[in-house]
Amino acid sequence: MKLGMYGLGRMGGNMAVRLARHGHEVVLLNRTRAVSDKIHAEAPKSAVVDDLEALVAALPSPKVIWVMLPSGDVTEKAIETLGNMLSKGDIVIDGGNTCYKDDVRRAKILHAKGIHYVDVGTSGGVWGLERGYCMMYGGNQEAVDHIDPILESLAPGIGDIPRTKNRGSNLNPRAEKGYLHCGPAGSGHFVKMVHNGIEYGMMQAYAEGFDIMRMKGSDRLPEEQRFDLNMADIAEVWRRGSVIPSWLLDLCADALAVDGDLSKFQGDVADTGEGRWTIEAAIEEAVPAPVITAALFTRFRSRSGNTYAEKMLSAMRFGFGGHVEKK
Amino acid sequence: MKLGMYGLGRMGGNMAVRLARHGHEVVLLNRTRAVSDKIHAEAPKSAVVDDLEALVAALPSPKVIWVMLPSGDVTEKAIETLGNMLSKGDIVIDGGNTCYKDDVRRAKILHAKGIHYVDVGTSGGVWGLERGYCMMYGGNQEAVDHIDPILESLAPGIGDIPRTKNRGSNLNPRAEKGYLHCGPAGSGHFVKMVHNGIEYGMMQAYAEGFDIMRMKGSDRLPEEQRFDLNMADIAEVWRRGSVIPSWLLDLCADALAVDGDLSKFQGDVADTGEGRWTIEAAIEEAVPAPVITAALFTRFRSRSGNTYAEKMLSAMRFGFGGHVEKK
Amino acid sequence: MKLGMYGLGRMGGNMAVRLARHGHEVVLLNRTRAVSDKIHAEAPKSAVVDDLEALVAALPSPKVIWVMLPSGDVTEKAIETLGNMLSKGDIVIDGGNTCYKDDVRRAKILHAKGIHYVDVGTSGGVWGLERGYCMMYGGNQEAVDHIDPILESLAPGIGDIPRTKNRGSNLNPRAEKGYLHCGPAGSGHFVKMVHNGIEYGMMQAYAEGFDIMRMKGSDRLPEEQRFDLNMADIAEVWRRGSVIPSWLLDLCADALAVDGDLSKFQGDVADTGEGRWTIEAAIEEAVPAPVITAALFTRFRSRSGNTYAEKMLSAMRFGFGGHVEKK
Amino acid sequence: MKLGMYGLGRMGGNMAVRLARHGHEVVLLNRTRAVSDKIHAEAPKSAVVDDLEALVAALPSPKVIWVMLPSGDVTEKAIETLGNMLSKGDIVIDGGNTCYKDDVRRAKILHAKGIHYVDVGTSGGVWGLERGYCMMYGGNQEAVDHIDPILESLAPGIGDIPRTKNRGSNLNPRAEKGYLHCGPAGSGHFVKMVHNGIEYGMMQAYAEGFDIMRMKGSDRLPEEQRFDLNMADIAEVWRRGSVIPSWLLDLCADALAVDGDLSKFQGDVADTGEGRWTIEAAIEEAVPAPVITAALFTRFRSRSGNTYAEKMLSAMRFGFGGHVEKK
Repeated sequence: MKLGMYGLGRMGGNMAVRLARHGHEVVLLNRTRAVSDKIHAEAPKSAVVDDLEALVAALPSPKVIWVMLPSGDVTEKAIETLGNMLSKGDIVIDGGNTCYKDDVRRAKILHAKGIHYVDVGTSGGVWGLERGYCMMYGGNQEAVDHIDPILESLAPGIGDIPRTKNRGSNLNPRAEKGYLHCGPAGSGHFVKMVHNGIEYGMMQAYAEGFDIMRMKGSDRLPEEQRFDLNMADIAEVWRRGSVIPSWLLDLCADALAVDGDLSKFQGDVADTGEGRWTIEAAIEEAVPAPVITAALFTRFRSRSGNTYAEKMLSAMRFGFGGHVEKK
Repeated sequence: MKLGMYGLGRMGGNMAVRLARHGHEVVLLNRTRAVSDKIHAEAPKSAVVDDLEALVAALPSPKVIWVMLPSGDVTEKAIETLGNMLSKGDIVIDGGNTCYKDDVRRAKILHAKGIHYVDVGTSGGVWGLERGYCMMYGGNQEAVDHIDPILESLAPGIGDIPRTKNRGSNLNPRAEKGYLHCGPAGSGHFVKMVHNGIEYGMMQAYAEGFDIMRMKGSDRLPEEQRFDLNMADIAEVWRRGSVIPSWLLDLCADALAVDGDLSKFQGDVADTGEGRWTIEAAIEEAVPAPVITAALFTRFRSRSGNTYAEKMLSAMRFGFGGHVEKK
Repeated sequence: MKLGMYGLGRMGGNMAVRLARHGHEVVLLNRTRAVSDKIHAEAPKSAVVDDLEALVAALPSPKVIWVMLPSGDVTEKAIETLGNMLSKGDIVIDGGNTCYKDDVRRAKILHAKGIHYVDVGTSGGVWGLERGYCMMYGGNQEAVDHIDPILESLAPGIGDIPRTKNRGSNLNPRAEKGYLHCGPAGSGHFVKMVHNGIEYGMMQAYAEGFDIMRMKGSDRLPEEQRFDLNMADIAEVWRRGSVIPSWLLDLCADALAVDGDLSKFQGDVADTGEGRWTIEAAIEEAVPAPVITAALFTRFRSRSGNTYAEKMLSAMRFGFGGHVEKK
Repeated sequence: MKLGMYGLGRMGGNMAVRLARHGHEVVLLNRTRAVSDKIHAEAPKSAVVDDLEALVAALPSPKVIWVMLPSGDVTEKAIETLGNMLSKGDIVIDGGNTCYKDDVRRAKILHAKGIHYVDVGTSGGVWGLERGYCMMYGGNQEAVDHIDPILESLAPGIGDIPRTKNRGSNLNPRAEKGYLHCGPAGSGHFVKMVHNGIEYGMMQAYAEGFDIMRMKGSDRLPEEQRFDLNMADIAEVWRRGSVIPSWLLDLCADALAVDGDLSKFQGDVADTGEGRWTIEAAIEEAVPAPVITAALFTRFRSRSGNTYAEKMLSAMRFGFGGHVEKK
């Protein structure tokens, strides 16, 4: 299939290459021409264009354009512009980290013009080129059917992962290949958002566990109560036969094998929106989500020095007990 | 009543003075003689002794000794020593911050010798000399009846605080005067412990609220979304007619009136054991206590730089996304 | 001052009466005429009208209308309608539980017409008629100066609450009377929202504490570890001289004096929006708010039977361990 | 190697069979003879005895006895009894779910008699017979060297799990085979305990995520905001190429493939001690562990109807606002 790929950063560039390797013709557009040229060299049968007009002109109808830009204003602007350039039956795909509420809004606007909007939540990070991308997408049936060949090429496929027991024929066979039509526009990014929320919680669970084990050897405890544990070996042993193996644990083991002290990591942990939106969704639904929330708050706290809240605690303690707190 | 007061720190010293002002004869013992002399000067009819032997000798039977020492080993040692010096019918009072489990254990040992053990959870801090001390105590009926005059003198009394509606005569009238026999040995410190757990949660609730209001004016938000709020005025306005007035809010208002930035407070918040024991009790009883726990964890986190857990989060993020986190 | 009061429910009705008792002329409007008549009988110099047109017609310019309706669509519609009926210089007050973001939006729309919008966060509940209402409000200076006499009458005043130490003349003297101009439109409801967030946290802190004390007597513990504590007496004793007295504790004491088992309360705890918005604000500002969040999640959980999340936990436990969970 | 296996429940029985299949001679002891006979039939070269005396008598010196009994009193009694029957150089292994503090205590007592104590934290559940058991163990070097052949047979081995990148020769090669000497007695159960704590957190992360996705289709939201998502397909798609695959996710997928409603699961989630001890350890070390704690509290809450805490919240809301809460 011939399609346009707009945005060739770490994600978009690798996806274009993977698509080209699977025989698709990818028309490449990036803010910086040099990046397009670099991807072009790796992507058979690809072409490079310099602006949106040229991108649209290069594609047969129905035109398919995959937008893979930083979420927020940049993507918003791109979708809006494309909405004014495309025609009935064309398909715009947003593969970035958009909030699902924006998808719902955009799809409605584009729908009025007969343009299809497909939101694709994409997981896989820097590993996707080789492993494939797990994709959760939303949009109408006609549009997602049309782009199925692209999605299948990007997806990891069934691979050597054991099949789920009792999985019946009533379930969607694409899910086993690592891509899934979740529902109408917005539902793809919604499921991807929850995926990230779960990711936050799992990461925090491991992080707490390793912290508790490491501090068991610290002078916060009387010497006779300490254990001096080897974090790298523990991460490793859990990878085989325990209840908690996972890809995230593999990554812990990788990092700890290099340096059990993790001394090159500072620990100011970023967050990219999905965790916040997951909690917002939980609150809208009145669903308790204490673990995902605690994981997000830990990240917030990690990025600042002592907070105003903590100073207020000290102020109260000074008020009732004359306590003066110093490091 | 004649009694011994062992330990004349900020709490014990003020209590001795308050007792003396209410007509009790207090025999004073402190590690440092100079402190005893200072309290002696403020405490009518008091006497000073230099060691436990002299303290015991100075008291009529049944001897009543109030131990007001730092919790932990110091108190443990003192109670053990007194257990070997006192006789059947004598009364040892631990007024410090002892864990209730230690009370239960000690009371059992002393009971075998016929010595009464009373644990008194005491609240009031630096304000107690004037305001009186709220006391929650445990022990057998005979012992607590005997020391009732002391407790009544230390308690704040009914004061000008409005009476609780519908409070029937089946309830303990001492509670209205600010002191309460909670049950057998250990129950006093148990109730005091939970008091402190609640205190942690309330303090944290205020602290979070003020943090959210203050950060509403920070550059974490786009300029058009900011409010520049006056913390001192807000604390003040809430003191009258809102749902959340409390003594802790009064203390917030005091601190904020001096400096809305709380700049003299560093925010490394100590904890003194009761919060930890409260959570331990909650876990033993399978009672969810998310707020008290979150309050304690905030204190833990406030006292360290980036944790090992946070570094592990960064390491995982680096592993799957190539993210490098910097301040 | 002559003003209109639109909405005479529990809050608006009492406020109208309090205003009338302080000499203001209140024109009353309510969906149900009978309610207006009832308030009229209690409110000296008041008048009753039957619709918004009559309300607007009855007021001198600049017209002042206090809207005290259920938050959400009802209030939204009323403000919109008034925006079309009022003129330059008139003042619309929203005294309900509106989200501050709606205030910001509305004020902008009305501002374009020269109409002032004042949002008043009002605390005091069923007690306000006698105690007065704590009010936090936002709007431009001209408007809030004009309505100051109304606000002063509604406010509790300085009363017999001790003055805050070191409170300087640089601070707003109205705060000491229980009402405060917080900033531009929206800031009043913002501060009120955080007040409610704190309220959630404090309530939960007390609730957890009492739960831990009560369960200390339950058969979840071996008999020798139990204490059979009297909740009513403990709430009472804490009201005098402890660190945690508050109005909320007074309410606990009231309820427990009637029935320590709280058997008439079912425990499905509602939430009215402010807690949710507080957390939303915290997340937007990247401020950790674990206590307020935990308090909200407890309420969510209280209103349902076993959740889908809990079933998923059981399903996983069955999967790895063959555990079958039954009540 | 010849060894005794005391306790042939689900774990001990399977372990005995796995050991026998690897050529070890296992002397079997179980409270119920019939169970021993059943295992005997599956375990080549095994023998059955009827009491501890016979078990001890049947083994050559140094005698090795693996105790695999329910944790708590039963195990405690067994270890104590064996301590009186064994001699210098013999080895007692506790493979159950013992709290590490008990291990430390026991090892000290046995050490005085020259008896070795090894604690083995064992993961693998009902799957271990085929998959092998991930084991984390503590004890002195001499003892763990002696029993290495047993441990290697029980362990899963390196299998087809990819090797960790950059894992150097300075690290313990046994970890890659799924078993690890963590340190002195107690350290094995400590690491296993933290493993379970992490497990709690991960399970809760998944559970919250699925709850949020499912409730997105519920009538808690306005109809136009709902997505009707297929839980089974989503669990499946995440198994390939996402960031959150894990064995626990596989189990979710298994359960959801059978019934997306999980209707056969009631959702009263048990806990078996390790989560509690993990939090206790975190608190002792002053390490924040909000996620593991929230996961535990969710389980507590899942097992009861409305709590006393929730009733107290309702009572306060009734007190200040006249709110009456009903289902």
